[in-house]
Amino acid sequence: MTHAKNSKALVVLSGGQDSSTCLYWALDRFGAGNVSSVTFDYGQRHRVELLCAREVADFAGVENLLLPIDTFAALGGDALTDSGIEVASEVDSESGLPNTFVPGRNLIFLTFAAALAYKRGIGHLVTGVAQTDYSGYPDCREATIESLQASIQLGMESSLQIHTPLMHLSKQQTVELAVALGALPAMALTHTCYNGKRPPCGHCPACELRAKGFAAAGVTDPLLLA
Amino acid sequence: MTHAKNSKALVVLSGGQDSSTCLYWALDRFGAGNVSSVTFDYGQRHRVELLCAREVADFAGVENLLLPIDTFAALGGDALTDSGIEVASEVDSESGLPNTFVPGRNLIFLTFAAALAYKRGIGHLVTGVAQTDYSGYPDCREATIESLQASIQLGMESSLQIHTPLMHLSKQQTVELAVALGALPAMALTHTCYNGKRPPCGHCPACELRAKGFAAAGVTDPLLLA
Repeated sequence: MTHAKNSKALVVLSGGQDSSTCLYWALDRFGAGNVSSVTFDYGQRHRVELLCAREVADFAGVENLLLPIDTFAALGGDALTDSGIEVASEVDSESGLPNTFVPGRNLIFLTFAAALAYKRGIGHLVTGVAQTDYSGYPDCREATIESLQASIQLGMESSLQIHTPLMHLSKQQTVELAVALGALPAMALTHTCYNGKRPPCGHCPACELRAKGFAAAGVTDPLLLA
Repeated sequence: MTHAKNSKALVVLSGGQDSSTCLYWALDRFGAGNVSSVTFDYGQRHRVELLCAREVADFAGVENLLLPIDTFAALGGDALTDSGIEVASEVDSESGLPNTFVPGRNLIFLTFAAALAYKRGIGHLVTGVAQTDYSGYPDCREATIESLQASIQLGMESSLQIHTPLMHLSKQQTVELAVALGALPAMALTHTCYNGKRPPCGHCPACELRAKGFAAAGVTDPLLLA
């Protein structure tokens, strides 16, 4: 392992509050010239997320790579048949189907990010997953991430480290971390609303959770001032 | 875990000799009504592989699902930029670029297959990876597969089992297994040649390795009789 490889980090950036905070954590930890970011275009309903990721990365002065994944849409739909004909990956705009949620989706994101890191000689991945508060997804838990890190290290013969700075933080603590890292202005560019609204709808579960975190930290959400 | 879940198997089918032998292994182990197969269209140079997978599955009377993965082409190319514009996933037909080889590719295949298995209530994955003979890829080794199985079980809260019937077999033993399973006729439909030829070119490393295995087993390759 060279020093250069160990000092570079790739942040999985969704355009949300958590991953954007992690971007600033990585800048603080690894230094401005050593951080890049990757965003996945997997057919998410709210395309605004991709724009937010781009804006946050630009604002932070960090490269943002966009990687397509058309597999989730194919997996989530009911278009899978025995015909051997490739299924369409588009979401039906009328029904909103197929559902692009796939179990273990985060395993895929991190493995693709690891492959990109490998190709670029990057030794560290940073992801905003958290097992506290709200997530509940088994692929966001610490035990899963640690196991996946081992699988990636074996499967790619690498010493890639996966960092999860928010793993045990509450939403309040995540806001406090953003403030401490000077990341608060960037939070005005992030996306949270389940309804895909900017400014946010304010009443969906994601908006309410975000509002609670800021309120508990005693901080005004810059997104609401925009 | 229900019995039904435990008795169903999904075979990762590339259309080659090894995975096709595994398809017959799965039929023998789990029974004809309990086996299905998945093939990945990841932009491989030789599209004939997809056709072979389909033909082998049809011949064996097994469902064959085709899942697209456009990410490898994007990862393998040099089209990744900071522009935030989605990269083209097509392979340039003139140069043959981008190189779709990505480190840890098998981790991705198995994780997507696991997600499909989860959605369909299938408890077993079967893959033709082998750490003997020629493979050498770190993501085909037993330690990697065992670690990945643990990651998938944690990340999907499942008890999915990954089976690797060929892990410690030589090419000769794989041919002998195919004969024992009655899979020899299906071998006429499989694809091996690195040059994408049918009938095979006979002199590329893949053709030579296949020929050696059949010769050592004292069996005529049905592919050469076609």
